Amino acid sequence: MPTTQQNQPIRVAILGAGGLGKGMAEFIPHRPDFQLVAIADRSGFAFNAAGLDVQQISQLTQVIEYPGAVASDEAILELLQAEGENIDAIFKALPNIPVGFCAQTIEAIVEKTSFRGVIVDALKRTRAVEQLLPLSGQLKEKGILYITGAGATPGFLTTAAAVAAQSFIEVLSVNIYFGVGISNWEAYKATIREDLLHLEGFNAEKVAKMTDAEIQAELDARDGLLELTQMEHADDVILELAGICSRDRVTVGGLVDTRNAKKPVSTTVTVTGRTLGGAVGSHQFVVSDETTMVDNVCGPALGFMLRGVELYRQGKYGVITSADIMPRYQIQVRQSAASNPLTQKIPTLV
Amino acid sequence: MPTTQQNQPIRVAILGAGGLGKGMAEFIPHRPDFQLVAIADRSGFAFNAAGLDVQQISQLTQVIEYPGAVASDEAILELLQAEGENIDAIFKALPNIPVGFCAQTIEAIVEKTSFRGVIVDALKRTRAVEQLLPLSGQLKEKGILYITGAGATPGFLTTAAAVAAQSFIEVLSVNIYFGVGISNWEAYKATIREDLLHLEGFNAEKVAKMTDAEIQAELDARDGLLELTQMEHADDVILELAGICSRDRVTVGGLVDTRNAKKPVSTTVTVTGRTLGGAVGSHQFVVSDETTMVDNVCGPALGFMLRGVELYRQGKYGVITSADIMPRYQIQVRQSAASNPLTQKIPTLV
Repeated sequence: MPTTQQNQPIRVAILGAGGLGKGMAEFIPHRPDFQLVAIADRSGFAFNAAGLDVQQISQLTQVIEYPGAVASDEAILELLQAEGENIDAIFKALPNIPVGFCAQTIEAIVEKTSFRGVIVDALKRTRAVEQLLPLSGQLKEKGILYITGAGATPGFLTTAAAVAAQSFIEVLSVNIYFGVGISNWEAYKATIREDLLHLEGFNAEKVAKMTDAEIQAELDARDGLLELTQMEHADDVILELAGICSRDRVTVGGLVDTRNAKKPVSTTVTVTGRTLGGAVGSHQFVVSDETTMVDNVCGPALGFMLRGVELYRQGKYGVITSADIMPRYQIQVRQSAASNPLTQKIPTLV
Repeated sequence: MPTTQQNQPIRVAILGAGGLGKGMAEFIPHRPDFQLVAIADRSGFAFNAAGLDVQQISQLTQVIEYPGAVASDEAILELLQAEGENIDAIFKALPNIPVGFCAQTIEAIVEKTSFRGVIVDALKRTRAVEQLLPLSGQLKEKGILYITGAGATPGFLTTAAAVAAQSFIEVLSVNIYFGVGISNWEAYKATIREDLLHLEGFNAEKVAKMTDAEIQAELDARDGLLELTQMEHADDVILELAGICSRDRVTVGGLVDTRNAKKPVSTTVTVTGRTLGGAVGSHQFVVSDETTMVDNVCGPALGFMLRGVELYRQGKYGVITSADIMPRYQIQVRQSAASNPLTQKIPTLV
């Protein structure tokens, strides 16, 4: 739990060793406040209080291949039972399917493990987020601050929308349209399986039964492109809870190219509102084509985590959403901040 | 001071009755959490616990023209001496010149008045913000939470930049370039006088001595256009304090048309950074041409104020910057939130 000194790094565990989990392992060394100490998925877990080898993790196909990793049917719970007190914060990149899976995992963590601290999830689906909200009381009692929807969308882009909304006296619509380029879909199997759910003629049951070869055939039939509309993304419930607008005014769609790392279209967030003077206008946030899904999920998730640890140290527990807090950043070169007398003077909310 | 019930409106005083002060008076009725109870500038103050008439205020040329307003050499202090306990939050739209003026006013408020609560400023200049930072201790003791740089830039756009930065492992530059259209410069005299300081051959002393007619002649010589570069805007110190990048990587410029309400160029925030993969890319936030300076200052300022009151009720005092917190919004139609069971369930940070 994050009762460590503020000059100690925040000890992070990653739950889920897919594309995002591995991406997070690579991201962490670039943010000086964090240290990766554990990674877990269904196949097993690896823990090292002195820090895990990030390069090794990014090359793993199974966590149990990591030296010293423990295999277990319930590896995530086993990790948090054994080492919960040696972990300050968790990045949860587990599948959204079935939608109750995340909430069940969290209930089990509360009931069966010794972990207390900050949990940040990169959940996408509205129902997955909704199922977490009622757990707020249990999480508060346990001493966990849970930040939901803290990846890219919801998360990064939702927060940008929440800022953009401020100019208007009424927010008429929020449209998130993303472009995603993936050079090799097999590195993001779970994500692609979730994307398929948004296509006509697919549902959770059908996708769960499809083999990887069948998914590959489906992608081939579409030239590798998946156009997703009216997606169930939790940006809607999060913006509603944040007071920005009712959820029916929020739409999320996008175009995924599963064969090219280059994005087929730039990702945009368009916030349209009515002004004090009665005009209707749109602010637009355009995401750099040079940034990847890992950049836009993992960077912001660490920003939410850093702010979350500040709040945790002030005694905030329970469930909040990404749109409730400003993600926090810390420049690499601490020297620069340390040598700046102003940085010493200003009190932060910590 | 904000010890009122959470279902009571936040009682706001506006300090400064120029274009922004009056704009704020018009904005407040559109945000259900606020009630305007006072306005003050050098010429006098008006206070009404039951709320001021916003339409009347927007038409005033001097505060003392408001029915029942009190004229005074030190009207701002007199207001806060007489009614400080009946005000929850202050929006400060006082001139940045001289740069010490704002800090002096705040010291006087701390020492000589009964006000305790939240203060939000729309300061622009780096040195004006820097002079406030050392007052944090006094403000904390007094029981005041002061949010500095909470207008458009710094404020709205700085916060957008702080969100955008999250994707990168290093932020290389933040460039804010604004377009401003003002149909009638006389409604923004103080702002235009400040803008003149950024032009070659001008300084504070010179501008202070210029008559309105001389300013008009200067504007005429430039076809009403002021191109501003390398502006001293506090976005730099605020982004440095927020850990985003060192201040020398932040530049602010813009083009002001003092004869047309239409913006001569769209306002943009461009955040350029290095990604995990080693690429350099830019996220860009493009502000709607349909929004005015009042929209982008006053709307966000109320968002910061609303979040500030939440934090104040938790016992947070002292100086923070706009980039430390997520501005908070509340949809007009409270009905919609009230009828949504989720809104009842989720705990906020309040």
